[in-house]
Amino acid sequence: MGTQPPLLLALDLTGTFAFGLNGALTAVRAVQLDVVGVVALGMITALGGGVIRDVLIGSIPPATFVDWRYFALAAGGGLLAFVFSRHLDRLEGPITVLDAIGLSVFAVIGASKALTYGLGIGPALALGVVTGVGGGTIRDTLIGRIPSVLRSDLYAIPALVAAGITVVAIQTGVYGLPAALGAAAVCFAIRMLGVHLELNAPRPPGRGPEADPSGSGPADRE
Amino acid sequence: MGTQPPLLLALDLTGTFAFGLNGALTAVRAVQLDVVGVVALGMITALGGGVIRDVLIGSIPPATFVDWRYFALAAGGGLLAFVFSRHLDRLEGPITVLDAIGLSVFAVIGASKALTYGLGIGPALALGVVTGVGGGTIRDTLIGRIPSVLRSDLYAIPALVAAGITVVAIQTGVYGLPAALGAAAVCFAIRMLGVHLELNAPRPPGRGPEADPSGSGPADRE
Amino acid sequence: MGTQPPLLLALDLTGTFAFGLNGALTAVRAVQLDVVGVVALGMITALGGGVIRDVLIGSIPPATFVDWRYFALAAGGGLLAFVFSRHLDRLEGPITVLDAIGLSVFAVIGASKALTYGLGIGPALALGVVTGVGGGTIRDTLIGRIPSVLRSDLYAIPALVAAGITVVAIQTGVYGLPAALGAAAVCFAIRMLGVHLELNAPRPPGRGPEADPSGSGPADRE
Repeated sequence: MGTQPPLLLALDLTGTFAFGLNGALTAVRAVQLDVVGVVALGMITALGGGVIRDVLIGSIPPATFVDWRYFALAAGGGLLAFVFSRHLDRLEGPITVLDAIGLSVFAVIGASKALTYGLGIGPALALGVVTGVGGGTIRDTLIGRIPSVLRSDLYAIPALVAAGITVVAIQTGVYGLPAALGAAAVCFAIRMLGVHLELNAPRPPGRGPEADPSGSGPADRE
Repeated sequence: MGTQPPLLLALDLTGTFAFGLNGALTAVRAVQLDVVGVVALGMITALGGGVIRDVLIGSIPPATFVDWRYFALAAGGGLLAFVFSRHLDRLEGPITVLDAIGLSVFAVIGASKALTYGLGIGPALALGVVTGVGGGTIRDTLIGRIPSVLRSDLYAIPALVAAGITVVAIQTGVYGLPAALGAAAVCFAIRMLGVHLELNAPRPPGRGPEADPSGSGPADRE
Repeated sequence: MGTQPPLLLALDLTGTFAFGLNGALTAVRAVQLDVVGVVALGMITALGGGVIRDVLIGSIPPATFVDWRYFALAAGGGLLAFVFSRHLDRLEGPITVLDAIGLSVFAVIGASKALTYGLGIGPALALGVVTGVGGGTIRDTLIGRIPSVLRSDLYAIPALVAAGITVVAIQTGVYGLPAALGAAAVCFAIRMLGVHLELNAPRPPGRGPEADPSGSGPADRE
């Protein structure tokens, strides 16, 4: 990730910090954890998606293990969430925005890096989504929740759209900072629209809203 | 996997499709998911075991990321399960058969590939089982269920037997398409026998059927 | 791991056996499992942390897949736990001690190996902890429990301290068998102190003991 344009790098680092903060905060709310658990879950949320991608494309050690700023920002976000966990409840708006930035940038970078390493279009799309949602999915699994990506409002779809735009841009030779930012902006817009309108992707026929209007799974009881 | 005999390749692709279908259907039944979640869980079920195996033996990128047919069949199976989820309940018999085919072929291919990459007998046996049961185990963990392989009727044992026959055949120089099909057939037969007779492997002494006659874990309550 | 000093190798193998035994025993208590499930969870507990570390640093195939003694000891520990699961309840003291030995040695070896493979200090600390707690975390996730490392008494912190001492010793050129044993001994002492005094790391402000005096999460209900 060291050769990224400065703006994309800045957004990538912002996303890492936002995921660390948001991931740790989610963990604090869901289960009783000590400081190590909270910071660890923040780091896993922030770094998990990129690590899975790098393992699968053969970029070892993972990029986030090579540049110390990723570790520092992920841990810093987690620590901040631990210290200010009571007050962060009021900051839900900004945190959702930061989280959407992370999702958007991670999806674009993930798809782009997969193509750089010679993978095909299908895997590049999948790895774009995995980079965006992988960390949060590991966190949710560890704390016993059905992963958000599987049950909540539009989350994987905007990441998939961003990965798709990125792949098309690279294949047609127009990829660059503007295209990357454009793809991320589209993802961000869909995601925020989903948050505000509480939109959901289609559900299986005959198992619609009447079965579970809140869109929540059994794990939410806890 | 590109150098496999055509029949083994056909079975491998059949197993991938069956796992995609079956994995997605299991997910649809267990939790409220949208189309992205269902297809994603189908793909994870179909591709997960092979991906773990390839990461551990150093075959990067994973074979299923290189040949687009695996992605297409896994996603197609998942999509089919989403669209026809109500009607697939009636097709439980055929789905169980397809799932057993996938388990059998994956166990043979997993053990064989591990030996090809220079691993020892113990790891080859383990990776045969992991290839067969890994994807379903990740899916179950993500949706909050105790993995089937840990609690239900004979599932890991037939895979272990198939991996064992494969390893013996390779070590004695008689491995080829007939041996591979024979190993898969034995696995298939044990698995189907287990399904029909509801057999289970031995449980710890003093914690037998009276404690939990259904063989189900706490997660089944949900 | 083949070039370790004999004493460190002996401790490493002891830790593997202890983790196999302890991991399988934890699984037997938590859910109804057959012999395959118990042994599999023992092996996952014993080998999981080292496998994740080796995948992330690019040591493929993982060290525990190359030296058959790791597989044999992990499986043997799991099998022993299965056979004697009723009587092992009385052996909780010795098992806790063996588990602490495993944690200590794994943390030292994990941090040391990460530095050997050229990783920085932050990742080396993280991988020391992951080597120590990774296997148990996968096991807990598979059986539907919040991982011990996230909720119980001091577990990750002693591993982090041992990894820290190891990193400092290597950076200052004084690393060797005495330093490795010293780092492991400090980890062991903190861990056993935590067990006896039921100490916990700090929790988030305002969510202290009154909220959940037992330090247990929702998963403990099962």
